[in-house]
Order: sequence, then structure tokens, then C-alpha cells
Amino acid sequence: MNSYGTLFKISTFGESHGPAIGVIIDGCPAGLEINEAFIQSELDRRKPGQSKITTQRKEEDTFQILSGVFEGKTTGTPVAIVIQNQDQRSKDYTHIQNTFRPSHADYTYEVKYGTRDYRGGGRSSARETAARVAAGAIAKLLLKKTGIEVHAYVSQVGTLKAPPYQHLDLSKTEDTIVRCPDAATAEKMIALIDQVRLERDTVGGVVTGVIKNTPVGLGEPVFDKLHAELGKAMLSINAVKGFEYGSGFEGVALRGSQHNDEFYKDGDRIRTKTNHSGGVQGGISNGEDIYFQVAFKPVATIMQDQTTVDKEGNEAIVSGKGRHDPCVVPRAVPIVEAMAALVMADFLLRSKTSRIS
Amino acid sequence: MNSYGTLFKISTFGESHGPAIGVIIDGCPAGLEINEAFIQSELDRRKPGQSKITTQRKEEDTFQILSGVFEGKTTGTPVAIVIQNQDQRSKDYTHIQNTFRPSHADYTYEVKYGTRDYRGGGRSSARETAARVAAGAIAKLLLKKTGIEVHAYVSQVGTLKAPPYQHLDLSKTEDTIVRCPDAATAEKMIALIDQVRLERDTVGGVVTGVIKNTPVGLGEPVFDKLHAELGKAMLSINAVKGFEYGSGFEGVALRGSQHNDEFYKDGDRIRTKTNHSGGVQGGISNGEDIYFQVAFKPVATIMQDQTTVDKEGNEAIVSGKGRHDPCVVPRAVPIVEAMAALVMADFLLRSKTSRIS
Amino acid sequence: MNSYGTLFKISTFGESHGPAIGVIIDGCPAGLEINEAFIQSELDRRKPGQSKITTQRKEEDTFQILSGVFEGKTTGTPVAIVIQNQDQRSKDYTHIQNTFRPSHADYTYEVKYGTRDYRGGGRSSARETAARVAAGAIAKLLLKKTGIEVHAYVSQVGTLKAPPYQHLDLSKTEDTIVRCPDAATAEKMIALIDQVRLERDTVGGVVTGVIKNTPVGLGEPVFDKLHAELGKAMLSINAVKGFEYGSGFEGVALRGSQHNDEFYKDGDRIRTKTNHSGGVQGGISNGEDIYFQVAFKPVATIMQDQTTVDKEGNEAIVSGKGRHDPCVVPRAVPIVEAMAALVMADFLLRSKTSRIS
Amino acid sequence: MNSYGTLFKISTFGESHGPAIGVIIDGCPAGLEINEAFIQSELDRRKPGQSKITTQRKEEDTFQILSGVFEGKTTGTPVAIVIQNQDQRSKDYTHIQNTFRPSHADYTYEVKYGTRDYRGGGRSSARETAARVAAGAIAKLLLKKTGIEVHAYVSQVGTLKAPPYQHLDLSKTEDTIVRCPDAATAEKMIALIDQVRLERDTVGGVVTGVIKNTPVGLGEPVFDKLHAELGKAMLSINAVKGFEYGSGFEGVALRGSQHNDEFYKDGDRIRTKTNHSGGVQGGISNGEDIYFQVAFKPVATIMQDQTTVDKEGNEAIVSGKGRHDPCVVPRAVPIVEAMAALVMADFLLRSKTSRIS
Repeated sequence: MNSYGTLFKISTFGESHGPAIGVIIDGCPAGLEINEAFIQSELDRRKPGQSKITTQRKEEDTFQILSGVFEGKTTGTPVAIVIQNQDQRSKDYTHIQNTFRPSHADYTYEVKYGTRDYRGGGRSSARETAARVAAGAIAKLLLKKTGIEVHAYVSQVGTLKAPPYQHLDLSKTEDTIVRCPDAATAEKMIALIDQVRLERDTVGGVVTGVIKNTPVGLGEPVFDKLHAELGKAMLSINAVKGFEYGSGFEGVALRGSQHNDEFYKDGDRIRTKTNHSGGVQGGISNGEDIYFQVAFKPVATIMQDQTTVDKEGNEAIVSGKGRHDPCVVPRAVPIVEAMAALVMADFLLRSKTSRIS
Repeated sequence: MNSYGTLFKISTFGESHGPAIGVIIDGCPAGLEINEAFIQSELDRRKPGQSKITTQRKEEDTFQILSGVFEGKTTGTPVAIVIQNQDQRSKDYTHIQNTFRPSHADYTYEVKYGTRDYRGGGRSSARETAARVAAGAIAKLLLKKTGIEVHAYVSQVGTLKAPPYQHLDLSKTEDTIVRCPDAATAEKMIALIDQVRLERDTVGGVVTGVIKNTPVGLGEPVFDKLHAELGKAMLSINAVKGFEYGSGFEGVALRGSQHNDEFYKDGDRIRTKTNHSGGVQGGISNGEDIYFQVAFKPVATIMQDQTTVDKEGNEAIVSGKGRHDPCVVPRAVPIVEAMAALVMADFLLRSKTSRIS
Repeated sequence: MNSYGTLFKISTFGESHGPAIGVIIDGCPAGLEINEAFIQSELDRRKPGQSKITTQRKEEDTFQILSGVFEGKTTGTPVAIVIQNQDQRSKDYTHIQNTFRPSHADYTYEVKYGTRDYRGGGRSSARETAARVAAGAIAKLLLKKTGIEVHAYVSQVGTLKAPPYQHLDLSKTEDTIVRCPDAATAEKMIALIDQVRLERDTVGGVVTGVIKNTPVGLGEPVFDKLHAELGKAMLSINAVKGFEYGSGFEGVALRGSQHNDEFYKDGDRIRTKTNHSGGVQGGISNGEDIYFQVAFKPVATIMQDQTTVDKEGNEAIVSGKGRHDPCVVPRAVPIVEAMAALVMADFLLRSKTSRIS
Repeated sequence: MNSYGTLFKISTFGESHGPAIGVIIDGCPAGLEINEAFIQSELDRRKPGQSKITTQRKEEDTFQILSGVFEGKTTGTPVAIVIQNQDQRSKDYTHIQNTFRPSHADYTYEVKYGTRDYRGGGRSSARETAARVAAGAIAKLLLKKTGIEVHAYVSQVGTLKAPPYQHLDLSKTEDTIVRCPDAATAEKMIALIDQVRLERDTVGGVVTGVIKNTPVGLGEPVFDKLHAELGKAMLSINAVKGFEYGSGFEGVALRGSQHNDEFYKDGDRIRTKTNHSGGVQGGISNGEDIYFQVAFKPVATIMQDQTTVDKEGNEAIVSGKGRHDPCVVPRAVPIVEAMAALVMADFLLRSKTSRIS
């Protein structure tokens, strides 16, 4: 299904080249002030054509709220948001209509549904994530009420890695077009992406997310653990291949005596001396920073000839046409933030019934 | 909530030291033959005390089916399974009743719920996974009908790694107590775990999962992508810190031209020459092997003194008592398989309504 | 939440006087041919101003499909439909902005949400049902594939009752503006509604639903019984006060020996001699006609002065303004059909996984 | 599926003659004191053999809590309750194994699932409702915290009707074995049931439910209206044929000017002068009494020969064997209360996130 969330629930719709895409947010509490300029600014962080290292395709993703907001505040009814598609011209899609692009969803959609909207990838296009970003902006507004902050930034492009987040000033993420807050690394990343673009190729990367000021007690034990939902949310983003939080894959090499986070008293709060747990213990937030990494594969559309087969199974050649991202991670940053905000908003509401009040 | 799945849905219950744990499976199609010996053999693969490198605590996890099976077959009504807890004696739990063990769920449960069943970790104990294994066994029986096979094995302990799965004979997984099908690596892993145990410490590891013979078309685009559900399912297992599939985190360093999986015709089937996609494209299975890795942290209970705080915030010392696993991955193998089987069974049923038939 | 259904799932949004209302249908199988003229004709049956016994307010409910349909067929992705609101002028709503209309949702919304969109009733307006009718039209197209037919008609207005459905020709429902297929009763009903309108009052009625050609086996035992879902669906329509199926409330006076439906063999089929069961036994369809009755209260908006209180608790007078329906049932017929079709489409899809195939 | 509820969610399992039936309650807030004697007393109100007008079959429905309760209070984890079946002897069921009892679920289960547990009706037996009563008892304990009271009583047997609830003293419901608080009517009802029993027949009845002290604001607009969920919950009980609330089916004959409930100020509270709305406006509670009626058909098992067909379609004769209820409503009273309590507990929790707090 095309919905995410339990109490703060979003349902997205729309294909890349249909009339519009959009989202319904169901379960947003009444009385939340909606800052439309903030929603637009989030969409602008995701939109194509924003810098020289993203696709040069221009799309102004302007949105309209159709319901659920009255006199500037949410009313408790569904908030529906639509974003018109500007580029619906039926271009020539013959090259992909009957041919399966490598590492795209063309083949699997065709077999699953017996049909597909092949224009620009249809539903499988990352354009769908614009709807998530709009909804995520509203989730962020809700989280702000309890002080929860959601950050993300580019921590790796190809093999170029930024230092760990603890050593970075996250307020500098937007200072560079690659959205890496470490200026030196950012410069190298930009150069690499530029070079890859010239080679008519693409490259992968990692986005790191950091959630600060989470109250203790968010997350549900067993199946809906906080990090399990974060993981699902991230893995649902196009091109994502992996998710880890806290010590992650590197943590497996440690001994328990190294990895355990000892508790101590810090003023009124109980805190941990280290944070290999990544802010989550037993699936529930412990008040420390929640941090995680999201791996993105190199974009599948490349400006080179590749062999494939067509619907009839005949060998064929395809090559990317038009303007595509040489590296997806700079534009993925707001998407990671949006999904993280949606997860946290949902758990925030779910936590309201954990105990007899 | 304590449920997982959409159409093949499980709900687990039970605490480590309560009367029993168990599971309800709702949505299992009628007419499935239930092999009770197989369910028991799966539980035996998970049970404590099975080898020298697992906890020496003895628990015979015998189960009883309370409903949903009649004359050896499922009836379409909920299948309820209970596993009695044998070890309910109220041991002395004073040491953890008022104290928060490092990197356990004691503190977060206490704050979230205002109370907790502290005996043996209560609901946060990995004992809950026995219920998943029982349900997973039934999911495996269902998958067998369409030929889908679910495998898992230990691919890493500490820094010791087995070769990639393509080079292994997965039928040898059960040949060693560490459940690594590569004999040479297995021997080293066993030695390492034994040494860590003698050091009264613990160590982490990685379990690799491989799903074979999946038909094309399983998985739901957008939020419930096949790999996103697999990721959530794995991350919901105790001690898991990361999930990746296909090329995973290593894939980010590749170029698109290296990473893309070109299609070709293999007899009647459309296949891909490489499989960096890990058998999933656009969230939907493409018929190739689905493979993934699951990172497990070192077990938090160590036989050493650690500093922590008690409920009142006073500094305290805790140390593991009793018998615990020095490394969780050998016993995690059947749990990873169970969760993978549950995910696949659910998607198999969900795929029945993808198209007008 | 603002969603209905499990596999064929709709989510509606929109307020009476916001920019638009609409619906997302998630789970409609791919390959269904979409007849847009049929959707429009269903909306036209519900629209205001269609006859002298409905409100004279004119609204042309034209819709646009934003997604999920490509080259005339569903693609398996969400079908989003929007209906623009034509009447968004901020009329003078001062009379209801601060005052609670008797037997409306003004007071309960205000307390629940701390706010409300008071223009035309906002979300509580029956305008929301246009979205249901559009979605129901698509459900009807799906049902047609298996031969299932959904009918509804006006069986009672005030105390005027039509004969039982078995004595009626349901193809004549649209022959009269009151949508009662019995011409003689229809004439009296129209006269009564006209008279009530002149008295500046309103009157209630009953809509009867009949579902024909249902295959045996739809419906889920226990909580999601076929008739329980039908009941919920009907009771979710504005102004509905009661639901009964088969023998209903009258059946309680019968003896078991009178009420039981004996089975017999009719050619290849097993059928029942009588049908007090209303086509449902144990929550599952038995192949006989499913029939049910839905009670609608008199419309709450009347053209008379009524006493009430305002937000501050001061006594106040309200009176209906504008043009309202003197009796809701003629326009409720397509809504009852739409909800019945949605219920049946959902159960049709759910039935695909009842057994091992 | 076999679950009910959104946040206070129950899942039941079990067949009439399997090892046990039971229920998992997921979402009960932590810290609720569990009075086991109260749960037992509720089960005793439902159990067979409790009086001369119910079945004389003796079943002691004793329950065991397997999880979710620690030191007398809920912990926030799933509360699992099992009730062993005492009567599992494989009696001679040949008469129903291959034959479809009229107006039972034998035929529909057989076709839907291709199999059925025919012993005592299997899953379709009303024995399943014992699990609901146990869960409902816990819901009642939760509701008591906010003062909400759930009442039900027998208001009609055959054509014998008690006066409206406003004229009754509901504390007298348990004074008679028929559970009608009006002594004179109760006496006649008992005589009627006794006579019907002697005639080896059965008779239907009506149970009225009354919910008092509901805060304003429970219930969700649109699909999950308070009365729509109540309706579904009631219609999901075995043998129920109809549901109405407030003015119900009789209300359709009224004019709007008669039916509307005018608001007035009563001390600090806003109240309505009349209550045709049945305590619900726009799907949301308005603080007045919620009252509703539930129609039960005559029990299908009668001690008389009836014609039917067997699996092969041959004509056959069946007759009730053993001990059955001549009228179900006296024992249905606690079931109606249980389902009403479950609905209200769920809405109580859902209301916690209606607004920004």
C-alpha cells in the first residue's frame, strides 16, 4: 500500500508524468500552525535543477493545500496537498516503452501489474518523494513543539567520507551544494560528482541522519522498534541499499565490554557515557542523539549505452536521455529528513497512550 | 504494537519469566499441511543450551497448537501457538529490579511505561523470538508450496568473515555449531567465541540471508518495498544494528556503469547478468537471489562489573549473572530465517490481488 | 481515520467549502478499464439540484483523475480523484461560526478539536460523500467483472413504505425522482416531501440495498463479518441511525423453526428455500441475495427558528439559511450503493487468500 | 481478520472443541490494576448452564493470564488470556460432519475454506465470545478510570418489550435470570422462553445498551464514527441481525422539527433537551447517554427435524442434539457490554491525539 504511519499517517499518490502528485496526511492533531513558506523551502531543497551537481531539469514544485487547514491551523481533518506536474508533454518515450532499463523498476512493474506508466518511470520515479517532503515539513512543525530536531547531511560520496557527525557543525549543511557540513570534504565531493558527470556516469553516497532532543520513551518494543521503523522508512526511499544506526556494521567487531553504554547521572537526567546504542535501547529512545546512516546506490540512469532486453525478450540497447542526477545524495538529504520526521511524529503520537495518565 | 504482517499476520505475546509466550498467526490460508516435527526442529535450532558456544541455560521449548489446525491442516482461522516457560521460579532479581543494566531496555521501559517486568528482561528478552520462529516455520511451509527457499548463515563473527554467499554451499550451514557453511572460517569463529567467553566478554557478528526461487513480482512499491519490509523485520530482532541488501554499503563506492545489472534472456526467463540489485528492483522481486546482511551487536550482558545508576539515580555496579550467550549470531540464524519467511509469505499473499485475474 | 477498507482501500479528504474534496483508492488491481462517463453519471445521481425534491443548490460535481490510470486502465498504483468545490465564496457564516446548530456536528467538533471549519459544516458536511460515490463507481466496475450487482432504492419516507424488494422491479428505481421503484408509492412519497418542504421542515426515510450474484464465500468470520462491515459502512453515512439485514429487527419475533433457511439442491447449486439470513451466514455470503435496510433521520437543517447556545453558552436562535434537502433519501441512494460496492470489492479481494490455491 | 480495535486492540483465537480459546489485548496502557475476580464474574455472566432458561451444558470458563500483567498491573505489553476448553471429547459429530445445518455457518465455511472444524461449530461457535468478554472486562476497568459506565439489558423477547431505558433502573438487570430490569416484563419473558424451550424451538430478542458519562469528543468523524464502530462491533456478535442507536428506525417517521435536539446550558455543561441523537453527533460523543438496540435472531439450533443437504448435495435431515439455548439474549447481555466497552476504550485512547496538547 501507499501509506506510511500509524497515527500520523501519510498516503501518497501520483506518477512522474501524470497531472499531479500529492499526499494526504491523516491524524495530524488539530491546532498546529502551518507555515506554508517553510513547506515550500523544504520542497525547494529537493527540487531538480537547484545546483550544477544535480539534474539540470527545471521543475518548480509548488504545492496547494486542499483541505485540513483553516485560518492557518490544522483542524484535525486530513491535510491534502497536491503538487502539479509541469512536464506532462508526451515526449518520445518509445525507447523505454518496450524496453527494460537496467536496475530500474521497468521489468518488475511490468510483470507484477501486467502494465505500467512508462513515462519518466511513472510511479517508480523519485518524483514521488516530493510528496513525502511536503508531509515531512508538517511533521517537522509538529516535532518542533516538543523540541525534537531532525538533521541530515551527506557523509559520503563514492569513497570520500566526512568525519563523524560528532565532529561536525550541522548548521553548515546548507552552506555547500553537496550538503556536507565539512567544507574540505564538500569541496572534494563536488569535484568528484562533477567529474563523474563528465564521464556520463553516476556515483553513490551515504546520508547521515541525526535526531536531537528526543524525549525518553518514543518507539514501540518488539516489531515497531524505533530504529526498525526508521530503517523501513529509509529503505523505502528510492535507491537506498542499506541502513545502520548507532555503532552499525562496525559495531559487530567490538566486544560487549567496549560497546556497552554505561549510565550516569547528569544533573537531573540519566544519560549514557558513550552512545553506541544510537539513542535507542530495546527499540525505545533513551534521550541521547539518534544517529543513522543510509546508503544510496549510484543512480541507475547513465548517459551510456547498456545492453538489455525488450518485452519480447529481444536484445536491445538503452541509454539515458535528458538530464539526470550524477549523484542522488545532495537532493536525498531533505528526503531523509522528511522520512525521519514522519517516523518521529508518528511515535510521538503513539506514545500518548503508553500509560494510564 | 506487537503484530507484524498485513495478510499473513503474527501477533506475539509473553514475557521471559511469565507463564508462557506465544503467537497468533492470522491469515494463513486454509488447507496448509502442518508438520509439527518441523516446527519443533526450528525451535530447537534457536533454543538455549544447544552447543558449547551458546548459553548453557537449558530450556526445552516445546509448543502446543491451540487452534486453527484440524486433522493436520490449517482451517483458515487463527493459529495460536503457546510455549510454556519452564523457568518461572522467582530467582533473585534484586540486582536488576532497581538498577538499569547498560545497553539493555531496562531504563527505556521504565520511563516509557512507569513499570516493567524486570525478571529476565521481561518482554524485552530475546525469548520472545521463539514465538517468531514457530510462526516462521509455518510461513516456510507455505513458501515451500511455491518453491521459495529461505536460507541464513553466520557470515561474520568479530572481524572474521566468510567468503561471499555465492561461493558457499548453504546446505552445510548446520554442519557446524556456529552455523557458518565455510568449514575453515567456522573453526576460527568457534575458537574466537570460546575465547571471548573465557574472557567473560561478548562479541558481535553478521548473519547473511539468501532467499531463492522467488517469483517475479513480490513486494509493494513505495513504502512497503520488499527490501524495506525485510529491513524492518530484521531490525526488529533484538541486538540488530544494521541491514543492507544486494551491494549494500559497499555499493556506494561504485559507478552506475559498474553497478547496473544488465538484462539478458536465459531460455524462457529474463535474468540479470550481475545481481547488485540483490533480487529487488523498485521494491519488487525480479526473480534473482535476494540476499542481505544483518549486523548484530555484541550481547549486552557480560560477566564483568559495569557502572550504572539505579532508579533513584545513585551510582551502582551490575554484572551479568547466570548463563548467557557470548555471541548471539549462531542462535540468530533461525530467527533471521523466520522473519524473512514471514515477510515473504506476507508478500506472496499480497501479490494475489495485484491485477485483475 | 479517514480511510475505509483493507485491500480495496479509500481515503477521503476535503471540507465543504475548501478548494476541493477528493479520494485516493489504494489497492485497486491493475488492468481495470475505467469508464469516466460512468463515474460522472454516478456523481450526477448524488449531486444537489437534480430535482424539485432535493436542495435547489446547484453544484456540478466534475472530477479529475490525477493518478493511477494510464491509457484508460488502472495501473495498480493509487487512483486519486479530486472534485473542485465551486462554492468557496466566503458567504456570511456568522450565524453558525459561534453557534451550535441543533443535531449537527458543530458542538462535538468544537470540543474535540478546539477548532472547526464552520463554513457549510466543513468536514462534517455530506459533501464528503461525493468522494465516496466516485470511489464506489470504480468499485462497481470491479464487481461487474464477477457479475456482482449492487442496487439500492428508497423504501420508506416518513411512514410511507414500499412493498418488500422481492415484489419490485429494481430496474425502475431511476424512473422517479424519489428513487422508489414502486410507482404508486413513489408518487405519494414525492407529495409528502413536497409538503414537508413547504412546511419548512424535513422528514426521514429508509434506503434498502440489494446485492445480487455474490459468489459464496465473501466475508470474514468473527469481527469482519460481511454484514458487520456493511453495517459500519452504512452507519458511517451522514444522518444514518440504523442498519438491519435479512429478517432484521422483525426477525426477533419469529421462532427458530420459522426463521431457519433450509438448504436444497437447485441444479448445480446449493440454495436456501427462504432467505431470512439475508444472504449471509456466519458472516460469509451464501450466494443468495444480500439485502439490508438503512434508516436516515430527518435532515437537521430546517427553515425554522430553533433555540440553542453559542460558544460562550449564551442562549441563541438559529434557522436554516439557503437551500437544503427536505428529505435526504433520494440522494442517499447512490451513496448507499457506493458504500456497498466498496465493501464488496474489499471482500472480493480479501477472498483471494482464503485457501491454498 | 480476527482482530478488533485500533489502539486498544484485541485478537481472538480458538475453536469450540479445540484445546483452548483466548485473546490477546494489545495497546492496553501500562499501570492499569487488573481485578481478576471481576474478569471471572463477567465470564460467569456469559457461561452456559447459569439458569434454567439457558443451555444446561455446564462449562466453567476459568481463565489464565499468560502475559502483560505484573504485580497486579498491566505493563504495556500484550495481555494474553486463555480459557481452556473442557469439553474436547470427540463426541459423535457424524450428523454435522457432512451435512449443512440450516442457518448455521457450516455451508459457507466449507465453501470459503474448503474445510472446517465441524465439532460444535468450530470457530463459528458463540464460544468465541467468551474471549471477548474477558477482554471487555479489562476495557471496563480502563473506562472506570474516566467514569464511563457500560450497561446492557434484555429489552425484548419475541414480541414482549420492556419500557424505554429512561424508565428503568439499570441496577436491577442482574435481579432476574433473563436480565430485564423491569420485573413484570422479565417474568413474562422467562415464561415465554420456558414455553419455547418445551416446544423444542427458539425465539429471538433485543438487547439494549446504554453508555453513561462519556466525555464529549470520543469518536472519529467520517468512517470511524462512534456509532458506526458500535454498530460493527454489535453486528459482529453471533446471531445479530440489526443495530440502531438513538431514535433509530422509528426516527425516520419524525419531522426534523421534532427530531432535532436543542442545546441548552446546564450549569457548566452544554446539554441537549432531548436525546434523539443517542449521545452522538457527527460521529462524536456529545456527553449525553449513548443508547442503542441490538436485534438477535432466534437461535438456529432447534430440537426438531429440518431438511437440508449434505456435502454431495443429497437431501438430508438434521436435528439439534444436546443442550442449547432456547433464547440467546440473556447470555448476550455481557457480550454486548464487552463489545461496547472495547469500542469505547479504543476511542478513549484514540482521542488522546486529537489536538496539540
